[in-house]
Amino acid sequence: MESKYKHKVNYYETDAMKMTHHSNYVRWMEEARVDFMDKMGYSYKKLENSGVSSPVLAYSCEIKHSTYFDDEVEITTKIEAYNTVRLKIKYTMTVNDILVAVGETNHCFVNPKGVPIRLNKECPELDEKLRLCIDD
Amino acid sequence: MESKYKHKVNYYETDAMKMTHHSNYVRWMEEARVDFMDKMGYSYKKLENSGVSSPVLAYSCEIKHSTYFDDEVEITTKIEAYNTVRLKIKYTMTVNDILVAVGETNHCFVNPKGVPIRLNKECPELDEKLRLCIDD
Amino acid sequence: MESKYKHKVNYYETDAMKMTHHSNYVRWMEEARVDFMDKMGYSYKKLENSGVSSPVLAYSCEIKHSTYFDDEVEITTKIEAYNTVRLKIKYTMTVNDILVAVGETNHCFVNPKGVPIRLNKECPELDEKLRLCIDD
Amino acid sequence: MESKYKHKVNYYETDAMKMTHHSNYVRWMEEARVDFMDKMGYSYKKLENSGVSSPVLAYSCEIKHSTYFDDEVEITTKIEAYNTVRLKIKYTMTVNDILVAVGETNHCFVNPKGVPIRLNKECPELDEKLRLCIDD
Repeated sequence: MESKYKHKVNYYETDAMKMTHHSNYVRWMEEARVDFMDKMGYSYKKLENSGVSSPVLAYSCEIKHSTYFDDEVEITTKIEAYNTVRLKIKYTMTVNDILVAVGETNHCFVNPKGVPIRLNKECPELDEKLRLCIDD
Repeated sequence: MESKYKHKVNYYETDAMKMTHHSNYVRWMEEARVDFMDKMGYSYKKLENSGVSSPVLAYSCEIKHSTYFDDEVEITTKIEAYNTVRLKIKYTMTVNDILVAVGETNHCFVNPKGVPIRLNKECPELDEKLRLCIDD
Repeated sequence: MESKYKHKVNYYETDAMKMTHHSNYVRWMEEARVDFMDKMGYSYKKLENSGVSSPVLAYSCEIKHSTYFDDEVEITTKIEAYNTVRLKIKYTMTVNDILVAVGETNHCFVNPKGVPIRLNKECPELDEKLRLCIDD
Repeated sequence: MESKYKHKVNYYETDAMKMTHHSNYVRWMEEARVDFMDKMGYSYKKLENSGVSSPVLAYSCEIKHSTYFDDEVEITTKIEAYNTVRLKIKYTMTVNDILVAVGETNHCFVNPKGVPIRLNKECPELDEKLRLCIDD
């Protein structure tokens, strides 16, 4: 399963080089990830309401072309790997079908005390949905 | 009591007009407020650890002169009003002694459930310190 | 003329009080303002391409109710005053028809050197559109 | 040459997990990088004033331990590679001597038109300083 999400570059996301500040790409990955979960049928809000959070353990971003205020960035989100304790997501960003950035985030799952958990035990419904994404 | 705090403008705080994005001034007010409480001897962290938060109910900012990357902004923080349930703080910002912005924030105090509280009952130590600030 | 714009609260816009950090409201005002200009038929991007910027001289925000991750905030934007050198805009924010915040921004117009200009001289097309907004 | 820089976690940098939002680490890398250049004797501001910018081509961050409001993060910055057209910088972040995050940024150098340049031709003074950093 792949999911597409659109983000228009806000003025407050630009910097004095007159382009998007690089730190925003990883924020857009989060927006796209949340949208992905909405479309998957198990929202991040629902996950947190069940007492589980999914912190980011690592992230990376490669910027191929600068983006600018008012650009419409299309972000394609894809589950790259999932094994009930770890989740790896890849993001591809385009503007007018031109590749502008690629990124990756790595996640675990934790309970309200911050202790890592196994999603198949604590949240089997999301576990199953994520497994289906991988099989696609 | 007045307190002075310094913030150097970060590159990520600039925008495509090549100056500081206006939204950052209210963030610097927060930095200055936290620093003020550190110097007052009752840190915001200590307040939150005691179960009390102080959300912002309102804020305003007037920008007199643009600021730029690498500018050192000096923020003078002053308690303007305090009556155990409400707190009003004023901020004056200068760069090289030139006034660049003034701002104000209004706060209440809430318990972990978000219910407004009276600071003289829930946190008499901070209540007393704030009263002393007003009398100055 | 009034314009409505929707913003879903991003996770990165929340803070440790588990609600939206107050600094984001003034960023949403910018998003709504840019969207307003798109709908008015003279985009902010077009304005900047013509060499004119519209910096924020002052802003204020009053938060009536906290907002939270995933809330859909509807922002109604209205030109409050305009006289070719100054522009005042008001914003009303609701979540599920409940008023959560009101705000205001004040702007001037400047040329690429940062010198204030009269919009009726430098950009008569936008000047006319803004006058029509006021008359509504 | 290594350089150490301190950043206190701001409240606005936290998120609803009550810890630092992950996007801030790459912003702190920028703060540390700017501080590094100040200490190296060729500030980023001076570089931009000379007409040269150094955009981020790629970045990565691995978060070992969460950080929290008011934590003092010490960031050690080290030039990892430099060849006059590309620059790679590594960052190590600790809180109370405990490793909390590592990161990396990759940069090129561009002229005001965004065209990549060779630093030894366009800015020999900084080129020499960066070479000395590598030799350390």
